[in-house]
Amino acid sequence: MRFHIVFAHPEAASLNAFLRDRALSALRAAGHEFTQSDLYTMGFKAVADGADCPDDNADPLIYHAATRRAHALDKLSADILAEQAKLLAADVIVLQFPLWWFGMPAIIKGWADRVFCSGFAIGVPHIHKRAWRRYGEGPLEGKLAMLAVTTGAKSAHLSDRGEHGPIADLLFPINHGLLHYAGATVVEPFLIHGASSLSGLEADRFAATYCERLLDIDAATVIPYRSENGGAYRRGVLVEDTAAGSGFALHIGEPVRSADEEQL
Amino acid sequence: MRFHIVFAHPEAASLNAFLRDRALSALRAAGHEFTQSDLYTMGFKAVADGADCPDDNADPLIYHAATRRAHALDKLSADILAEQAKLLAADVIVLQFPLWWFGMPAIIKGWADRVFCSGFAIGVPHIHKRAWRRYGEGPLEGKLAMLAVTTGAKSAHLSDRGEHGPIADLLFPINHGLLHYAGATVVEPFLIHGASSLSGLEADRFAATYCERLLDIDAATVIPYRSENGGAYRRGVLVEDTAAGSGFALHIGEPVRSADEEQL
Repeated sequence: MRFHIVFAHPEAASLNAFLRDRALSALRAAGHEFTQSDLYTMGFKAVADGADCPDDNADPLIYHAATRRAHALDKLSADILAEQAKLLAADVIVLQFPLWWFGMPAIIKGWADRVFCSGFAIGVPHIHKRAWRRYGEGPLEGKLAMLAVTTGAKSAHLSDRGEHGPIADLLFPINHGLLHYAGATVVEPFLIHGASSLSGLEADRFAATYCERLLDIDAATVIPYRSENGGAYRRGVLVEDTAAGSGFALHIGEPVRSADEEQL
Repeated sequence: MRFHIVFAHPEAASLNAFLRDRALSALRAAGHEFTQSDLYTMGFKAVADGADCPDDNADPLIYHAATRRAHALDKLSADILAEQAKLLAADVIVLQFPLWWFGMPAIIKGWADRVFCSGFAIGVPHIHKRAWRRYGEGPLEGKLAMLAVTTGAKSAHLSDRGEHGPIADLLFPINHGLLHYAGATVVEPFLIHGASSLSGLEADRFAATYCERLLDIDAATVIPYRSENGGAYRRGVLVEDTAAGSGFALHIGEPVRSADEEQL
């Protein structure tokens, strides 16, 4: 198995860096291949702009259209091409970051904004019908994806009735809106709450759990998000006899026990 | 009234820039004061790192702690101090951006990551009790805040049963998690869906509506998010007799008709 970890934390001495180091050691020891994008260390450009399609001279710039043309011509900026290649080469994609303002830090949000560009992950026509390849189909099809997220907040505050809102819903725009959108099979996230007050022993235990989660990723619990073209939606809206209720959970279908089964 | 618009779009010829220009003209014509942070034009630094507290020599850097110290000493980097000052001077704060991957573009996410730092918006102790000043209290208390967001997706796809999830829930991490957290009174967002395919006439009509929303902001519908210290929560979790059901909507209390009434 080939893993790709996208890592976004500014501090080399952080809990996140410790977890990442332990994870990479475990993957190496188990004989897995892996790549890493350590966005801070790379000085990854977070802001989408005209430099992302350097040979496109359209004036005025329309970013969406210009990056779409550049993608088609293989002329996106080198850093975007490299990130797309790492994603395509991986079997398992992990996004690891601390939760900042209930979302991704800007450097990894910008990684998503730039790398998941038009033509690569957006607006890819389906082959057989007048539809898009997205939500279950797309460039990450057949790959597993997992978030590894630390939060300063306690787990009670991110529970169903916690004041920040449920962590599953806070992560929905990433799990569903980015990873499932691009076709990945998304598994339950690896979460550490109250991350700023862990003891060394607790950090060590969490690192061991993180390593187990990665090494046993085939057995991870899949979040069974519905497919764009699987019958649950008509013209992008849930058909009437699919699911009652409200909220993001409507977009989760019948449980699949593990990544293993999903891939069958 | 004094408005502050934080604007995040890379293209000077965009619908967003057109809307912003019309809005600023309308505010000027009506005799309102305003400031603007046009983040792309400013080349605003999106990525939180040690340069945000240039006089702090702690090694290893712990960003949260270092920015907290720098805030206390008024030694945050000049761009952060300037943004905080503009927020504090405003009566109305507008964040205007296109929805990218169901959230803020990285440049404005980074604005939030850096400007709403520890000591300014996070970890501010309440005066009278062992509690935090947040969710209804904090640096933006007494101010109105509104999102102005364009989406490429159609409104049906962002409706209650739309495939992307309800737009109100997708914006919850910003409306509730950032603006309400920092104490602002948050009003319903100004939204334009299907923004990439508008005619000139439609754009013109939306611009007029945007101007009306801003000029009449006192009458805007408030999203009545619950207060941290208002009795609905105990130790950060909703008390049992407060609200049934699930999802982000649990954190919305009794309706308040308009910003006018909320301020009474």
